Amino acid sequence: MSFKLLEKCSRTQARRGCLTTPHGRIETPVFMPVGTRGSVKAMAPDELEELNTQIILGNTYHLFLRPGMDIIEQADGLHRFIGWDKPILTDSGGFQVFSLSALRKITDDGVHFASHIDGTRFFLGPKESMAIQRTLGSDIVMAFDECTPYPATVAAAEKSMRMTTCWERSCREQPLDNGQQLFGIVQGSVYRELREQSAQELVEIGFDGYAVGGLSVGEPEEMMMACLDWTTPHLPENKPRYLMGVGTPKQLVEAVTRGIDMFDCVIPTRLARHGSAFVADGTTIPIKGGRFAKDFSPIDENCHCPVCRKFTRAYIRHLLNVGEILGLRLVTIHNLYYYNNLMVRIRQALDNGTFEQLHAEFTR
Amino acid sequence: MSFKLLEKCSRTQARRGCLTTPHGRIETPVFMPVGTRGSVKAMAPDELEELNTQIILGNTYHLFLRPGMDIIEQADGLHRFIGWDKPILTDSGGFQVFSLSALRKITDDGVHFASHIDGTRFFLGPKESMAIQRTLGSDIVMAFDECTPYPATVAAAEKSMRMTTCWERSCREQPLDNGQQLFGIVQGSVYRELREQSAQELVEIGFDGYAVGGLSVGEPEEMMMACLDWTTPHLPENKPRYLMGVGTPKQLVEAVTRGIDMFDCVIPTRLARHGSAFVADGTTIPIKGGRFAKDFSPIDENCHCPVCRKFTRAYIRHLLNVGEILGLRLVTIHNLYYYNNLMVRIRQALDNGTFEQLHAEFTR
Repeated sequence: MSFKLLEKCSRTQARRGCLTTPHGRIETPVFMPVGTRGSVKAMAPDELEELNTQIILGNTYHLFLRPGMDIIEQADGLHRFIGWDKPILTDSGGFQVFSLSALRKITDDGVHFASHIDGTRFFLGPKESMAIQRTLGSDIVMAFDECTPYPATVAAAEKSMRMTTCWERSCREQPLDNGQQLFGIVQGSVYRELREQSAQELVEIGFDGYAVGGLSVGEPEEMMMACLDWTTPHLPENKPRYLMGVGTPKQLVEAVTRGIDMFDCVIPTRLARHGSAFVADGTTIPIKGGRFAKDFSPIDENCHCPVCRKFTRAYIRHLLNVGEILGLRLVTIHNLYYYNNLMVRIRQALDNGTFEQLHAEFTR
Repeated sequence: MSFKLLEKCSRTQARRGCLTTPHGRIETPVFMPVGTRGSVKAMAPDELEELNTQIILGNTYHLFLRPGMDIIEQADGLHRFIGWDKPILTDSGGFQVFSLSALRKITDDGVHFASHIDGTRFFLGPKESMAIQRTLGSDIVMAFDECTPYPATVAAAEKSMRMTTCWERSCREQPLDNGQQLFGIVQGSVYRELREQSAQELVEIGFDGYAVGGLSVGEPEEMMMACLDWTTPHLPENKPRYLMGVGTPKQLVEAVTRGIDMFDCVIPTRLARHGSAFVADGTTIPIKGGRFAKDFSPIDENCHCPVCRKFTRAYIRHLLNVGEILGLRLVTIHNLYYYNNLMVRIRQALDNGTFEQLHAEFTR
C-alpha cells in the first residue's frame, strides 16, 4: 500500500497520513503548489525546497502544447526537464480542454479541440491523457474527466458524470509505468445522488486515490462542503483523497475536517502577483496600499518565512508599485510559506490531538 | 587613502586595485550590476551575494521619484531599505533628468523638469543631488553633470562641459556624510581638447575618484577608446576611475587596458530579459531560438554558475517562450555571473602578469 493512515481525529473526519511515491514520501494533509507550464510561477526549484514543498502539480494540457511531448520525452520526463526531484502530480488535461481551448467537439473517445495559443487542432481523451502522463513520468496521474460546468441541471450533470465514469474506466485500462499511481475523479455537480453514485462507481473500478472534482467553480462555499460531506463517506479509508483546485486557508481546514488529504490551488501564487499577502488568520493584506508606504515591519510579525525575516512591507510595496519582478517573487515566497506552514500546523494538530482548536481558529 | 593601487600591468595601463568603503572593500577592476529602482532586475540580494557581487548601482532620479526621499530617510538609507549590506554607488540623477524627463529647463543651478511617470514638476541640481545621495547613504556619490548628447558640435560640447564643471565644483562644496566618497565626471564629448580640459579642471577641484561620462551614447567603439586614451593620462594614479554605462565584455577588457577600474552597465540584465545569454568568448546566444528546443546541455558547458550547474538550454528556452518569470531569472543570474567572472579573470590575470593574453583573447 502506498498510502498509510497514521492518525484519525476523534471528533471529525480529519486524517493524518503518508503517501509513498517513486520520488519520495508525502506527509498528508498536503498542499501542492501549481507549476502549470513546468514552473511554479516566479519560483525556482531550490526555493520551493527551502519552503519544504513536498509535491508540485503540472498541467498536462499546457505541457502537451508547449514544450510538447517530444521534448519532454527526450528530456527523460518532467522531473528531469524542470530540475525537480520530488513528487509531481499531473492533471489529465480535461479541465483546460474544457476551460481554455476553442472549437471543442466531444466524442465517446475524448475531445477534439483547437489550442488556445495558435488554434492548432488536437485530440485528447483517456488514452491520450494516460500516454502523455506516462511520458511526463508523474508520480500521481489523474484520470481524464469532464469538469461539469456550474450551474448544471441535474440531467446535464448526470450526463457529464456518466461520460466521466466511462472515460475514467478507460484510463484504468491504459498502461502506466512502474510506481505511477492513478487517481479517479468524482464528479456529479452539486447533486447528492450523483456525487454518491460517481464515488461508488469509481471505487468499483478501483483507483490508487480519489479526487473530488468540479468544485470551486462558482458554487457557494457551504455547497462545496456539503458535496464533500456526501462524497468522502463513500471513499475507501485506506486511499488518499484530493480536493482539486481548492482553496482559501479556511476552505482547506474545512475540507481536512471532512477527510481530505491533498489540495492544489493557484490562490497563493496568483494573489501574490496581485500584491495580496496572507497574514495569520488566513486573510490577506493589499501590500500595494498607501498605508504600507512607510511601514517598516515585515508582512507578518509572527511569520518565519525567508521574506519576513529580511524584507519590509514598505520595500515590497515599492517593488510592486514600480513593477519590479522581485516584488512578486517575495510575496509568492511568503504566500507559499503560509500555505505550507498551514499544512504543517494541521498535521501537527492531528498528531497532537489538537485539531479541533485549529479548526475553531479558522472558522469562528 | 581609500583607494590602493596593488599592481600595474607592465605593458598596458591596466591596474589592479582595492577600494575601501563604509560597507566593505571592493577589489578592482570591478563590474557593478544596475539596481535602478532599488532592485537589480529579477534578482534578490542573496542571489547577488552568491555571485560575489561586490557593489551595486542605484539611480538617484528613479529613487527620488519613487519611493521618494521621505521613505528612504525613514528606512535609514538605501542599504537598509533594500536589504543590501555591501557598497552602493548612486548616480547623480543628471543622466535620467536629461534622457527620461520632459519639459526640461536648465538654469545655472540645475534643471527644472517634469517626472516621466506623472508629470509632477521637480528641480534637481548639484545641491539637491548631493542632499539626496546623502539621504540614500551611498558609499560612492556621483557629481551632478550633463551627459552631453551625441553627436554634439564642439561649441555645444564645450558649453555643456563648462556647465558640468561648474555644477561639479558646487557638488564638492556640499556636505556629505562620513565615509561617503564623491566622484567627479569627465565630459567633453569626442573632442580631445575638451576631454583633457575637463579632466584637468576636475583634478584641480579634487575628487575621491574620477568617472568618464558621456560615452556609450552612440559613438563608434574606437572613438570611445580614443576618449579613454586622451583622458586617463590626466587622472591621478592613486584615485579610482569609473567608465559609466559601459559595456560589452570586449569593451570592458579594452577599457581596463586603458586604466579603468570600475564599470556599470545594464547589458547583462537587459539582454537576459530578452533571452540573450553570454558564452565564453563574450558573444551571446539567443536562447529562445528553435535550435535550442531539444538542446539538453547548459547555456555554456564551461560555466560554473548556479544555472549552468542545473538547468538546460531546452528548459530555459521553454520558460522564456511561454513567458515564465523563472526563465528571465535564470538568464539574468547566468549573465551576471559571466560579468562578475570576467572581472575575476581580469583581476587574476593582473595579479599573475598574464593580462595581455586575456586581452588578446577578447580582441583578436
